[in-house]
Amino acid sequence: MPINPDAVGATGDPVSRSWNSKDALLYAVGIGAGTNELQFTTENTANVQQRVFPTFAVIIGGGGSPMHKVGSFNPALMVHGEQGIELFDEIPPNGEIESTGKIVGIWDKGSAAVLESESESFDKATGKRLLKTRSMLFCRGEGGWGGERGPAAKVQYPDAEPSHQVTYATRQDQALTYRLSGDRNPLHSDPSFAARGGFAKPILHGLCTYGFTGRALLHSLCDGDPARFRSMNARFSKPVIPGDTLTVSMWAEDGKALFRTTNQDGDVVIDQGVCTYG
Amino acid sequence: MPINPDAVGATGDPVSRSWNSKDALLYAVGIGAGTNELQFTTENTANVQQRVFPTFAVIIGGGGSPMHKVGSFNPALMVHGEQGIELFDEIPPNGEIESTGKIVGIWDKGSAAVLESESESFDKATGKRLLKTRSMLFCRGEGGWGGERGPAAKVQYPDAEPSHQVTYATRQDQALTYRLSGDRNPLHSDPSFAARGGFAKPILHGLCTYGFTGRALLHSLCDGDPARFRSMNARFSKPVIPGDTLTVSMWAEDGKALFRTTNQDGDVVIDQGVCTYG
Repeated sequence: MPINPDAVGATGDPVSRSWNSKDALLYAVGIGAGTNELQFTTENTANVQQRVFPTFAVIIGGGGSPMHKVGSFNPALMVHGEQGIELFDEIPPNGEIESTGKIVGIWDKGSAAVLESESESFDKATGKRLLKTRSMLFCRGEGGWGGERGPAAKVQYPDAEPSHQVTYATRQDQALTYRLSGDRNPLHSDPSFAARGGFAKPILHGLCTYGFTGRALLHSLCDGDPARFRSMNARFSKPVIPGDTLTVSMWAEDGKALFRTTNQDGDVVIDQGVCTYG
Repeated sequence: MPINPDAVGATGDPVSRSWNSKDALLYAVGIGAGTNELQFTTENTANVQQRVFPTFAVIIGGGGSPMHKVGSFNPALMVHGEQGIELFDEIPPNGEIESTGKIVGIWDKGSAAVLESESESFDKATGKRLLKTRSMLFCRGEGGWGGERGPAAKVQYPDAEPSHQVTYATRQDQALTYRLSGDRNPLHSDPSFAARGGFAKPILHGLCTYGFTGRALLHSLCDGDPARFRSMNARFSKPVIPGDTLTVSMWAEDGKALFRTTNQDGDVVIDQGVCTYG
């Protein structure tokens, strides 16, 4: 069974997900946070309260989408296309949410299909909406049924130097820690599996690059305060290899920043980035 | 209440401890294992079975010692003195053990007391003995009651070049990942807490250095096969600072190796090391 474009609009059953302080700490070290970020990497430092990176939303959120209704595709040829998060409140170090998702678009790129889904998560203790995620999966080899191509790129970067720029090195073993936050796809760790997907080496999780990028946005735009972080949307434009150095360039104005992330060769790995903050 | 030397011989109630594949993977990245050690850092690599580092014994074992009977001491002045492990079988990626411990020695070093305990662990599924640990805790400021000093150093290193030598770099954020395996003592992460213990910076967990050292022993002496690893005993002789580079020097002969670990300045950080293997 190939992709079924009629699945657009399908909603899933709510799913619950809980997390604890250790999950948040493990995620923080997985996206490269270290000894200068003890509010994210420790829970018992004197006069420091544990905080949670806004991009942890991609770990706990996103549930409840009825992906079983979109038909079948080869997971070795699937890559993450875009990811968005929206925060309505700060994510606590411990909690439980209930998430409901739906398929909001299935696009035909000719040589690939793109599956777009959204999910909203509510704090089970308070009943308040905590976060929303939007995800686009790029399924190579699945397009060509004559459907719509979907929206084109929209972000126009200013013809000016970035207002902020941050460079982080990823480690050669970055994916081995990041994967312990949940995504055990061997594309990110097993050389033979990666080769079958056409990659010379295991590639870094797109959402790990997304986490590094979100860290840069948080520290540059929100002074490291997750309560000020509102939303982040971006497109994955090129695989990152563990060990790559990432530079996040931002053009910020009035609570909104355009951004993109490049590797050590200047190739854009995250594109079409928009972040809002308070 | 100070240290009570009469606690020697006291045994504790058995304690149970279970672990899973993720715990073993997290420990592996905590002691620096990476993409060249996928049998320890992944569970789903094609044609590779997950194995567990022998030094994971210090995480799951060691329970059931009646430490509450030895009196009181200042934990900020306590450091790990020695650690031994003995493996009777290979540690599986998932399991549950029951451990029983006893106090086997309380030594008076004059300016410090040394608490020596042993613990034996049995696999709950098979009833077979899996491992044994021996631990010496060095409690500064607690000696001076006129008790025995305990056994002196015994290892005589050969007057020859090491038969094997391995160098590993620790990372500046090494303790932040290692601590997620259980030891959350802020001495290893909180600069203000470390300062109260007299340290200019947070120091690496002694057992993390022990894990790096055990990795070097395993790869050099046992061709990376945990089933061949029998025992490892060593003394912690100087703190390691996260970011230090560790060199493990081994003198191996007939299934027994003497070893020591030095930092980038040549200072011995693990001394009196003896490892046996099959």
